[in-house]
Amino acid sequence: MGGYVYFFAQNRAEGSAKKRNLLGGKGANLAEMANLGVRIPPGFTISTEVCRYYTAKHEYPDDLEEQIKENLKKVEQATNRRFGSRQRPLLVSVRSGARISMPGMMDTVLNLGLNDASAEGLIQETNNLRFTYDAYRRLIQMFGSVVLGIPGEKFEELIEKKKEAKGVQNDIELTGEDLKELTDEFKELTEKEKGIEFPQDSSEQLRMAIDAVFASWNNKRAISYRKINKIPEHWGTAVNVQTMVFGNMGDSSGTGVGFTRDPATGEKELYGEYLINAQGEDVVAGIRTPQPFSTLKEKMPAIYAELVDITEKLERHYRDVQDFEFTIEKGILFMLQTRTGKRTAQAAIKIASDMVEDGLIDKKEALMRIDPAQLEQLLHRRIDPQAKLEVLASGLPASPGAATGVVAFTADRAVELVEQGKKVILVRTETSPEDIHGMAVAEGILTARGGRTSHAAVVARGMGKCCVAGCGAIKVNEKEKEFKVDGFMFKEGDFISLDGNTGRVIKGKISTLKPQLSAEFAELMKWADEIKTLGVRANADTPGDARLAREMGAEGVGLCRTEHMFFGEERLPYVQQMILAENKEERKKALEKLEPMQKDDFKGILKEMEGLPVIIRLLDPPLHEFLPNYEDLLVEVIELRMEKTDQKQLREKESLLEKIVALREINPMLGHRGCRLGITFPEVYNMQTRAVFEAVAELTAEKRSVEPEIMIPLVINEKELAILRKETVRIAEEVMKEKKVRFEYKIGTMIELPRAALCADKIAQQADFFSYGTNDLTQTTFGFSRDDAEAKFIPIYLEDKILTDNPFEILDQDGVGQLIEIGTQRGRKSNKNLEVGICGEHGGEPSSVKFCHRIGLDYVSCSPYRIPIARLAAAQAKLEEDMVQEEARGR
Amino acid sequence: MGGYVYFFAQNRAEGSAKKRNLLGGKGANLAEMANLGVRIPPGFTISTEVCRYYTAKHEYPDDLEEQIKENLKKVEQATNRRFGSRQRPLLVSVRSGARISMPGMMDTVLNLGLNDASAEGLIQETNNLRFTYDAYRRLIQMFGSVVLGIPGEKFEELIEKKKEAKGVQNDIELTGEDLKELTDEFKELTEKEKGIEFPQDSSEQLRMAIDAVFASWNNKRAISYRKINKIPEHWGTAVNVQTMVFGNMGDSSGTGVGFTRDPATGEKELYGEYLINAQGEDVVAGIRTPQPFSTLKEKMPAIYAELVDITEKLERHYRDVQDFEFTIEKGILFMLQTRTGKRTAQAAIKIASDMVEDGLIDKKEALMRIDPAQLEQLLHRRIDPQAKLEVLASGLPASPGAATGVVAFTADRAVELVEQGKKVILVRTETSPEDIHGMAVAEGILTARGGRTSHAAVVARGMGKCCVAGCGAIKVNEKEKEFKVDGFMFKEGDFISLDGNTGRVIKGKISTLKPQLSAEFAELMKWADEIKTLGVRANADTPGDARLAREMGAEGVGLCRTEHMFFGEERLPYVQQMILAENKEERKKALEKLEPMQKDDFKGILKEMEGLPVIIRLLDPPLHEFLPNYEDLLVEVIELRMEKTDQKQLREKESLLEKIVALREINPMLGHRGCRLGITFPEVYNMQTRAVFEAVAELTAEKRSVEPEIMIPLVINEKELAILRKETVRIAEEVMKEKKVRFEYKIGTMIELPRAALCADKIAQQADFFSYGTNDLTQTTFGFSRDDAEAKFIPIYLEDKILTDNPFEILDQDGVGQLIEIGTQRGRKSNKNLEVGICGEHGGEPSSVKFCHRIGLDYVSCSPYRIPIARLAAAQAKLEEDMVQEEARGR
Repeated sequence: MGGYVYFFAQNRAEGSAKKRNLLGGKGANLAEMANLGVRIPPGFTISTEVCRYYTAKHEYPDDLEEQIKENLKKVEQATNRRFGSRQRPLLVSVRSGARISMPGMMDTVLNLGLNDASAEGLIQETNNLRFTYDAYRRLIQMFGSVVLGIPGEKFEELIEKKKEAKGVQNDIELTGEDLKELTDEFKELTEKEKGIEFPQDSSEQLRMAIDAVFASWNNKRAISYRKINKIPEHWGTAVNVQTMVFGNMGDSSGTGVGFTRDPATGEKELYGEYLINAQGEDVVAGIRTPQPFSTLKEKMPAIYAELVDITEKLERHYRDVQDFEFTIEKGILFMLQTRTGKRTAQAAIKIASDMVEDGLIDKKEALMRIDPAQLEQLLHRRIDPQAKLEVLASGLPASPGAATGVVAFTADRAVELVEQGKKVILVRTETSPEDIHGMAVAEGILTARGGRTSHAAVVARGMGKCCVAGCGAIKVNEKEKEFKVDGFMFKEGDFISLDGNTGRVIKGKISTLKPQLSAEFAELMKWADEIKTLGVRANADTPGDARLAREMGAEGVGLCRTEHMFFGEERLPYVQQMILAENKEERKKALEKLEPMQKDDFKGILKEMEGLPVIIRLLDPPLHEFLPNYEDLLVEVIELRMEKTDQKQLREKESLLEKIVALREINPMLGHRGCRLGITFPEVYNMQTRAVFEAVAELTAEKRSVEPEIMIPLVINEKELAILRKETVRIAEEVMKEKKVRFEYKIGTMIELPRAALCADKIAQQADFFSYGTNDLTQTTFGFSRDDAEAKFIPIYLEDKILTDNPFEILDQDGVGQLIEIGTQRGRKSNKNLEVGICGEHGGEPSSVKFCHRIGLDYVSCSPYRIPIARLAAAQAKLEEDMVQEEARGR
Repeated sequence: MGGYVYFFAQNRAEGSAKKRNLLGGKGANLAEMANLGVRIPPGFTISTEVCRYYTAKHEYPDDLEEQIKENLKKVEQATNRRFGSRQRPLLVSVRSGARISMPGMMDTVLNLGLNDASAEGLIQETNNLRFTYDAYRRLIQMFGSVVLGIPGEKFEELIEKKKEAKGVQNDIELTGEDLKELTDEFKELTEKEKGIEFPQDSSEQLRMAIDAVFASWNNKRAISYRKINKIPEHWGTAVNVQTMVFGNMGDSSGTGVGFTRDPATGEKELYGEYLINAQGEDVVAGIRTPQPFSTLKEKMPAIYAELVDITEKLERHYRDVQDFEFTIEKGILFMLQTRTGKRTAQAAIKIASDMVEDGLIDKKEALMRIDPAQLEQLLHRRIDPQAKLEVLASGLPASPGAATGVVAFTADRAVELVEQGKKVILVRTETSPEDIHGMAVAEGILTARGGRTSHAAVVARGMGKCCVAGCGAIKVNEKEKEFKVDGFMFKEGDFISLDGNTGRVIKGKISTLKPQLSAEFAELMKWADEIKTLGVRANADTPGDARLAREMGAEGVGLCRTEHMFFGEERLPYVQQMILAENKEERKKALEKLEPMQKDDFKGILKEMEGLPVIIRLLDPPLHEFLPNYEDLLVEVIELRMEKTDQKQLREKESLLEKIVALREINPMLGHRGCRLGITFPEVYNMQTRAVFEAVAELTAEKRSVEPEIMIPLVINEKELAILRKETVRIAEEVMKEKKVRFEYKIGTMIELPRAALCADKIAQQADFFSYGTNDLTQTTFGFSRDDAEAKFIPIYLEDKILTDNPFEILDQDGVGQLIEIGTQRGRKSNKNLEVGICGEHGGEPSSVKFCHRIGLDYVSCSPYRIPIARLAAAQAKLEEDMVQEEARGR
């Protein structure tokens, strides 16, 4: 065999950027730069194949040593230096370099090639005792700790002692002589600790360093980093052996790092920092403050011009922003590294947009460049990244955004405090429908119990408010108006802050940043819309949501949850009346009160969405969700019983309790809800349907174009749908007759139970459209109650890799996705005009959106703030599909 | 068109038994009897086609009248009588006759053809004034009520008046003259009520009667009967017009009904009753007591011999027990009807067995003759069918059987009462694990709350005890030790009885009958085993269950639920200790106490099942099921808090409450249970696995042949199974080493979530066997929580025909069945040796068992008492398959 080692030097590299898997990111980019004619310190890369070989067999390939020797010779020729020689000694570094950068996780050894003899030579050559011994003592220090495993602090102790002895504060104040002494002391330490001399044979140094760097692929740090970042173990690392260049050889030397554009804003200007007379680690150490490039332009105009030239070339070549490192050794510029620069979402958009303008990339490539998930950053209030935070605890990131305010423990108190002009965070053990008015005025909501589908979470997302839910670490005492967390006690009026993106609960006030959408953002979204074929609709429950959704680019409402309207403060009493009604008459009376309110809601939403379809889902959750909390009431009743004072109140509460008990269920998720309610209590659905159609009729009479679609939730078979469809049609006809207008409408169903997907052929005969309710479909397909699962075992499943992703965040394509495919195929087979989409939170998650495109759905529907994410993901899905097809044609 | 009317007379019938759909059951059997040479009163059948025609078009086919006329002429010729004539008048009856008998649901008119003239003729012919006017007044009475719609009680009133006027008690005491007067009064009544004369034109009478009988297909009674019995409306009824014969023409006349064999016991002897000088309705009216056939043999030996002859012929012809009616008119025997006789399960078996012995049918036919579901009757204690019952209320039939005893309201009290020698019915609002010792001693269990998967139901079924659950009509006051129902109050010690087969709660003591299995039963089961290819295993949790299962013919244990062992009185404290453990150490300590107990359980079961496979499922339910009831504890804590006396107890209870709160789940069905527990708390599964393997090792050392199979519940993917498989193998190896024996075992999984079925190809690579948990699979596929659904909406769904059957009783082949097929195909594709079965209650339900056979499963597993049902159903499934294949070959 052969070909384990790849040489590189300016204009002469054996590798290239395409060989990234073999050479690692660093090695591949060095080769690529070299071939572009960029000046880099010559060297060679030992491929990842060797790492795999070594991991498997615990030895190296036979001819590896020979190949290294040959390549070292080429480096010597290229640099006109000799490794380990007194005369013009060649110094090299040995660094790891995996396919994907794993910063700081693996080991590095610098200055290899120094020994007592070559040090002497270097002093002569550089005429710089201090420089030489600084380099030498660094080599022994790094070699000692990395290769030989001597604890680093033992070397540090010696340095400290030396500084004390010399009466100086900083390393920099140590003289060449001091460092020479230190070098000897380091050698002694090495011998004392490991019983061997620091090797004077440079080849031995190199061999041992390469060994150590390969071995560092399997150190603890690296393994756990790979686990977190899902990097496969079998990738292995490459090892780069490269000529040392020194930025610390006086004032014509220096070192720096930069970006070809501003990685925070995307502005098109060289951006970076440098230090004169310094090595790379000095920039990192932070003792001296690096200077901006503007001063480099003044101080070293030629170097700066060369740098601009090279980096522009690199950007043009790679067609993307570059993150680069360089060193200036005695007036000569060496590039050390270049790679694609990480950037904020804002910068990503600006850069992509500018590059399209400059003709560097086309619109398609621009769209592919943006990570859709990253857009979330732009769409919500967020914590100022500059802010220093004191994190108290973490809960579930239940609704994104950031909020800061004073604590209130009851909804009423929240309202009072807001009336006093304060910003409020509502803190509850868990919220219930009675807290709605408090939630409505609060900046954010924090609960101790409940998952991401808890009342607090669902309502907060609906309101677009930041919410951290299920934060078990906080102990709320609502009676005493205080909560404890992490040893702190918070009272009403104390400031706290929430990070709804991460679930963090933060002490005190923090500053938050408003979302700002740039012109480039709008442009990019326009391009996405031009390309994508998948529709994007919004989940919107109020006219406000609908307006926002339209601003975000929604092409309709894919899910309007009518029950969210039931939680309104002025409505809940009637909803409760309706539920607790003893007979049909009483129920009807309460419903008559609700109908005009619902009609107004629907009018508002339909008006906002004029010209676009609006899917309105009839009541879905079990009725007891609208009633007072059972346990609280139970406690009250017992207390009243024991107090024996207020018999009348006791009897009332007992009677209420009895009704709530009758409505309670063991597994409410799988209970009396959805169309099951519609069938057993037809009055409720009839009221809702009537409210929709009256709204439609009135708007139609106003010559507004509205497209209502009535959606029946939770069906198991076609018969349920047939019954409810008939009722819906009857009411539509009634309303048209009464209001003397004609209007069009559709009737469809949620597919959110496995049985519905499996029997979709029959169901489709009764449906104009299907909408997959992926939340419930995930719950039933997995047998996971989201609230329970996310609190109790999904985190463990993710850690143990039993699950790759949380299926409530990222659609489970293997299981749930299969049902969606089956349902869609069968449904369309029996009803060619069937419109098919998904609603549920997956509709705004990029990989899930792409899946929906691939299996040919008509649209996805997601919360308003996720619409841009879905639009971009949909465009990318189309582009990826085109690429696959082109490739297939090419073959 | 033609052929609406089918003539029949002895040896000359146009129809046959094969034309049942066209002629109805009655008409087809009359034709068949006629063609067999049996003497029947001549007549004709108007086909069901006419009923359909009439229902659709509200008129009769054009030539129907003509066909009726022709056939009436044939009847006249056959009887040598003339319809409506004074001379030898022909009297006919008009009766309905649907494909399936709908006794008493539709109308009948007798004695048509009588008018003033023919009555005179009949008097002359019979020399019997009383007979004639009795017949005539009956005609007017039936015609008036059935055809004309005059309320029947108006005729009855006139009869009562007449009796009063004549000073007699019974109709029979009225003389011929009295009846003649009554006939005139009836005519007047008819005219007064309907403004028309009773028609003297016999053809008019016939036309109107036929009309009325066809119309009665759509009377309320008939419609609701069809609904209950699932008879399609489009079947329609036929109408039979038949010569009247009279059993009330003196002592050489009579009428009777009988069975060719005893329908209760199956004994092979003519069985029936008759009355001399009486009409059929007299037998029904119950004024005179009918005589057994034994006296007929004495009194009319020739007639009896002829009857024996005819009925034997009929039985031989139909090859099944016949239920027949006959009339003797002046010494001449006429058969009026024959049909397959209904019989008890016991009789069905005896008859089938005897007929095989007699060579009348073969074993296969015998097997097909028995309704598997009917076997349930034989296998449990049941209420004496003779007993008069005062039913108080109905609950869910949660566990079959019958029980009688005194009421106890607590488990402790139940134990005390049993110790006093009493039989006890435990009555609770709902049961919890703490009631187990009371349930164990009780005869039966009655609960006010909870469905058929409630604690009470599951435990009772496991114990083979009668249970009525969720009987909402009873209001239990456990503190006062009383319950109210239907206006009655029951105290401790009062007698009640339960019918676990129907859910009835009965006042007082009743006598119950023991199950008795005959030799014929055993024989039949042997035949079933010879034919069936599907295995039948048992769900058995204890050695006692296993023994019973083996007696019932189980070929192994398909499901041993280890958690049921956890509920034992001496175990529960350790189980609770394990759950409430603060750390691994504490948990291990509790588990160490449990391990030897579990080992003994397993040894017991494995020993009972020596030579047969035993599938042991590891812990499945959520842990909080083993803890005290949350609400009870909450109430206790609040009471203690308010009393402020016992602070120590309060603190203890509070701490327990806190732990229970932490374990509570919103939807426990979809929560932290099954293998999710096994993965997050490996100690529990490890204890159980070790207990199994130690049991196996010890039995193997005793040279016993045992076949353990470890089953992992509730998997969603192959990774869970891989992890737990590895652990299981590790422990097996450990135990083999420790105990110095080798043994074989299998590791498999329950498939009870849609995802598992959909991803069965991957899961099968880690599994030796699959067992479909159809209860949970039904719950998740439908999104039905069984407890909630059966209480709240399944009854409505069944009534509205949204569901044909309760999917928890009869496997939903369309939805759940699809998943089972998919899972089985995919599983076997990737693992050719995969063994596949179902457990869950469907395993003992005949149609579900047949489905399992059809899709090629290896076995079903059900509760011990249902094993015979499953064996028979499996045999029938095989026979049905063979028939289909034969037919296919024939074509």
